Amino acid sequence: MAVPPSTHLHRLLPIFLGLFQGALLLFFALFVTYDEASAQAEDTNLVASQVYSTFPFFQDIQVMLVVGLGLLLTFLPRYGFSALTHNFLLLNFSMQWALVLQGLLHHFHHGQIHLDLHKLLISEFAAVTVLISVGAILGRASPCQLLVMATCEIPVYLASEWVIVACLGVLDVGGTITIHVFSCYFGLGVSKALFGATQQPLHPKETPTPRSDLMSLVGTLILWVFWPSFVAVLCQPGDAQHCAILNTLLAMSASAITTVVASSLLERDGKLSPGHLQNGSLAGGVAIGVVADMPMPPVAALALGSLSAVVCVLGFRFLTPLLGRKLTLHDQCGIHNLHGLPGILGATASVVAVLVASKDASGSHSSQLSPVGGNASEVAEGQWGGRGGGGQALCQAAGLAVALGASLLAGLLTGAALRLPCLARPPERLCFDDSLYFKIQDQAESP
Amino acid sequence: MAVPPSTHLHRLLPIFLGLFQGALLLFFALFVTYDEASAQAEDTNLVASQVYSTFPFFQDIQVMLVVGLGLLLTFLPRYGFSALTHNFLLLNFSMQWALVLQGLLHHFHHGQIHLDLHKLLISEFAAVTVLISVGAILGRASPCQLLVMATCEIPVYLASEWVIVACLGVLDVGGTITIHVFSCYFGLGVSKALFGATQQPLHPKETPTPRSDLMSLVGTLILWVFWPSFVAVLCQPGDAQHCAILNTLLAMSASAITTVVASSLLERDGKLSPGHLQNGSLAGGVAIGVVADMPMPPVAALALGSLSAVVCVLGFRFLTPLLGRKLTLHDQCGIHNLHGLPGILGATASVVAVLVASKDASGSHSSQLSPVGGNASEVAEGQWGGRGGGGQALCQAAGLAVALGASLLAGLLTGAALRLPCLARPPERLCFDDSLYFKIQDQAESP
Amino acid sequence: MAVPPSTHLHRLLPIFLGLFQGALLLFFALFVTYDEASAQAEDTNLVASQVYSTFPFFQDIQVMLVVGLGLLLTFLPRYGFSALTHNFLLLNFSMQWALVLQGLLHHFHHGQIHLDLHKLLISEFAAVTVLISVGAILGRASPCQLLVMATCEIPVYLASEWVIVACLGVLDVGGTITIHVFSCYFGLGVSKALFGATQQPLHPKETPTPRSDLMSLVGTLILWVFWPSFVAVLCQPGDAQHCAILNTLLAMSASAITTVVASSLLERDGKLSPGHLQNGSLAGGVAIGVVADMPMPPVAALALGSLSAVVCVLGFRFLTPLLGRKLTLHDQCGIHNLHGLPGILGATASVVAVLVASKDASGSHSSQLSPVGGNASEVAEGQWGGRGGGGQALCQAAGLAVALGASLLAGLLTGAALRLPCLARPPERLCFDDSLYFKIQDQAESP
Repeated sequence: MAVPPSTHLHRLLPIFLGLFQGALLLFFALFVTYDEASAQAEDTNLVASQVYSTFPFFQDIQVMLVVGLGLLLTFLPRYGFSALTHNFLLLNFSMQWALVLQGLLHHFHHGQIHLDLHKLLISEFAAVTVLISVGAILGRASPCQLLVMATCEIPVYLASEWVIVACLGVLDVGGTITIHVFSCYFGLGVSKALFGATQQPLHPKETPTPRSDLMSLVGTLILWVFWPSFVAVLCQPGDAQHCAILNTLLAMSASAITTVVASSLLERDGKLSPGHLQNGSLAGGVAIGVVADMPMPPVAALALGSLSAVVCVLGFRFLTPLLGRKLTLHDQCGIHNLHGLPGILGATASVVAVLVASKDASGSHSSQLSPVGGNASEVAEGQWGGRGGGGQALCQAAGLAVALGASLLAGLLTGAALRLPCLARPPERLCFDDSLYFKIQDQAESP
Repeated sequence: MAVPPSTHLHRLLPIFLGLFQGALLLFFALFVTYDEASAQAEDTNLVASQVYSTFPFFQDIQVMLVVGLGLLLTFLPRYGFSALTHNFLLLNFSMQWALVLQGLLHHFHHGQIHLDLHKLLISEFAAVTVLISVGAILGRASPCQLLVMATCEIPVYLASEWVIVACLGVLDVGGTITIHVFSCYFGLGVSKALFGATQQPLHPKETPTPRSDLMSLVGTLILWVFWPSFVAVLCQPGDAQHCAILNTLLAMSASAITTVVASSLLERDGKLSPGHLQNGSLAGGVAIGVVADMPMPPVAALALGSLSAVVCVLGFRFLTPLLGRKLTLHDQCGIHNLHGLPGILGATASVVAVLVASKDASGSHSSQLSPVGGNASEVAEGQWGGRGGGGQALCQAAGLAVALGASLLAGLLTGAALRLPCLARPPERLCFDDSLYFKIQDQAESP
Repeated sequence: MAVPPSTHLHRLLPIFLGLFQGALLLFFALFVTYDEASAQAEDTNLVASQVYSTFPFFQDIQVMLVVGLGLLLTFLPRYGFSALTHNFLLLNFSMQWALVLQGLLHHFHHGQIHLDLHKLLISEFAAVTVLISVGAILGRASPCQLLVMATCEIPVYLASEWVIVACLGVLDVGGTITIHVFSCYFGLGVSKALFGATQQPLHPKETPTPRSDLMSLVGTLILWVFWPSFVAVLCQPGDAQHCAILNTLLAMSASAITTVVASSLLERDGKLSPGHLQNGSLAGGVAIGVVADMPMPPVAALALGSLSAVVCVLGFRFLTPLLGRKLTLHDQCGIHNLHGLPGILGATASVVAVLVASKDASGSHSSQLSPVGGNASEVAEGQWGGRGGGGQALCQAAGLAVALGASLLAGLLTGAALRLPCLARPPERLCFDDSLYFKIQDQAESP
């Protein structure tokens, strides 16, 4: 019975990946080079200081994605090895694919693409969307399906990000709208189209054990610690970056405590749910991204963090079961609660922040609310391209709408494509099981 | 039987935390803002370079406290999820509480408190005391008791730190006296008052398994790696910080090796005890904090690291059982061996270092012993406020006495308060068990 | 039956380590001091910026060695605690021993050795060789044997590194030849001489469990994330370091994907082998070290990463069993596949890179291939000491030959010394078992 998916895996996965890697080599050989050599000592110092200011953030983000997110996904007790490996594989595949597409789209000057750390970082951000979207179908999709999904998601993300940031001028330094909202609804779209109208039954291997819950919590804690680096890496150095770090720290701290409050109040016997802790503690980081470097007082970061945690826990408790029953929408990791709802909350907060800041700027008592630099009116003009607070607020809302619409539509289409029988979706009986993909001792036999 | 604590937990924990979070929001809304915006380019560069010089250290310390210390506490095999979560919750709660109190105490200029990364760091240091003290009663106290303990400990710590550093002028860059000694004896005081004269019996769930010992060792190793960041973050940039890093690295390296020697010699069959390794390897880091940036030769750091490890292992082997029998003092994690004894050793070393350095300064052959800057006599005058070596040595000793006395007294009072029945101490049968606090599958049933 | 090794352990290990630690203290007391104090503000800024540019890399490398490599070795399910602890102990021992030897060899000016972060880093690199070599005999050697091995390996490494880098002028910024190739063949030599002509039977405790495979994969991922810091730490700041980081990132990313392709194609049912993933993903990092800062296009880094992964997986699949059968060569962790083969591949690539760059430099179209600074001909002259591309290529090959020859010979001699009965090799029955060295609950009895 296990033969068909294994055979398909055997045939399809290495062929697909091998061809991709070959094409990548060809593309790099033809078009990609490093930046022009800088012979001057001044340039060397500049490059050196850029490396020192970017590289530690970059490493923090790598730890988040490879170790933190990977461990967070090991809550499925017999699927830990697959979760870690598929997360790792998808990160590398999507990053390389984004590098190629970005090269083709944006950087095609004089036939040469100049690679640097910043471009790798941007590609890494694109890859994050795939890693998040996977959460909706984790354990029930084959690696081939995940790779096809990544292949579809990256170009749509790049297009959507271009529309939202470059065309609409949306401010979103931490990727709340462009990354979190987009990837969440893309993933839900895929899940809906892939699993159709049949509700997924609870699988016996789906229930976390104390041990897998512990590993998953370690992943959460790693993500929690390094989240400020993720939000602040693309900020302007100086006050804006300092503020973004502080806002993120405050929001995440408030999330952590509020999650305990909310989870304890919602569960009948007052016991905390591990799932709430693993996700709610991070909700503040999702929401704060879009406003992290905007002029706003520290209390706003705390409030946003608390509110996100409440929304996330409420989502797990009520909305996910509801969506499952009414829309037969399957969301394995609850990405709607961690990325969708807090993302929308953050986008809404950015609308409010922009309106309040522009009102303050037109008044006189502006200094308190403009941590980013200059006084608020200058900031507002500088930041918003002379568009005015109302216009910018509208843009933020439009950006959210674009992210939502584009991702849902593209996700549904991608999900339909994943139903192709050649992509080898694992049979229900073999879902959530490492032994389908890895030469691994059966866990039941292990001592 | 399990109903009363659960019900109490249900009622009390979210109410307490929710009220605190609400009060925090109010406090922040009224009083806290970010630093004045800096419009000049120079200021921007200054802020940027401050962020780059502090933030990597800050992140290292976050990893230590959230991941490293959390994992170290998972040596209780059925209490790992609780240990990680309570550690995480207490860190956030204590940090916010310290932020409020520090705002009220020190920074009340013009009605506004200006938040920055440095103030968050100071609050984080305050929170460390709580995380250490908890070690004395881990597994036998409810989350509510731990929160009340944190509520009491933070203000006492801030007062004691103010007396020791600001009034007495004690030099303690790595917090050996102010953090480690203080938190250890506070925790022991709490334990004594909470458990009274009844000796705690060995609980069947208390014995580590190979798996929980492994996770705990990983926590130790994470703490071990990042300890130099903890000691050096508040040093003067330049030689002093460089020296503090080197001294800490040497002390920790000596601790690691000496722990193996001591543990192997003390156990009858020459087998190493996991508990010794998990703690002894870190003892050097505790002791070196107070002298890390003082003028002293590298061999002193090595010797102090070795001696701390010996003292720590001896403490586990002989002193902890003795204190248990004679004083019915319960010390679950052995914080007296890791924080108390090496802390006192470090404080004593600082007295010696100050005396030796001042003697050298009054003599002529000073260059070898003054790595911190200038020649030793200038350093001594500069560092010690013209007080002279003898006076400074006396101050160091007085600081140790203050930390010891204040913490023991406050700990005993706090422990008495924790006996209030409403705080829901778990019954003996349900101690050391995650399932009392979390909706977690029973470990005995797990496959 | 377990008595003899335990007794030996009891007697020998603490005596050996204790004497070493005492000698170290004496050596430091007599000869080691910190750098001369710098009184000028300029010097302080210089030291500060050196700390900020080196310390984050140093910490990354510490995480790799202590946590990442330690966890990677925990794939032996009942030997995890030993693997972590012995790795940790050997790192500290070898680092201190290298510090002493380097002090004696290189830095003996005016009777004083000036310690700084850079010297600690160099000693850490020396210690890496021991940690790699241990992989060949992991689980079948006693801690005393490992310490004797470290005692022998460090001086041979320092001599070989001196010949290769200082005398031959080999370029090897990431230690591909000096560290990886050297340590691999040293380890294999030790294994051959220690186990002789008897083939080691498969031990029942040798097979990884799903859980131990997962922990080991986490170790791989930590190593994978921080590998660029290891390669780039000793680069010239500026373009060279930037390039080295990018090349390493590309090589490791290609390795990750190619490993999946290769492993899936080689296994009969298309399932991936955990061992391939744990090692192949890192092969690119081993190979890229020697060429990371050389003038070459990005595609070369990708190709080298892919090729290394293929070679590594092929080695596991075919070469290791072959060597076991034909040469009765035992290689527990497959260090020949992860360090030996990719190391030789990298060295070969460096020969090609030097030849191509010098050919480009003598032609005119040089800018594309010289990312490191200046134009390629200047670089070539500057880097290669006016030796010319052909001469430098010859040197690279000679360096590889020296590393291979010296390590194999020294390894065989060291392995013969380890057969001394007083070093207490554990009996076959007690191999791969934590309970031989630690007071740890038997895993079979644990719940």
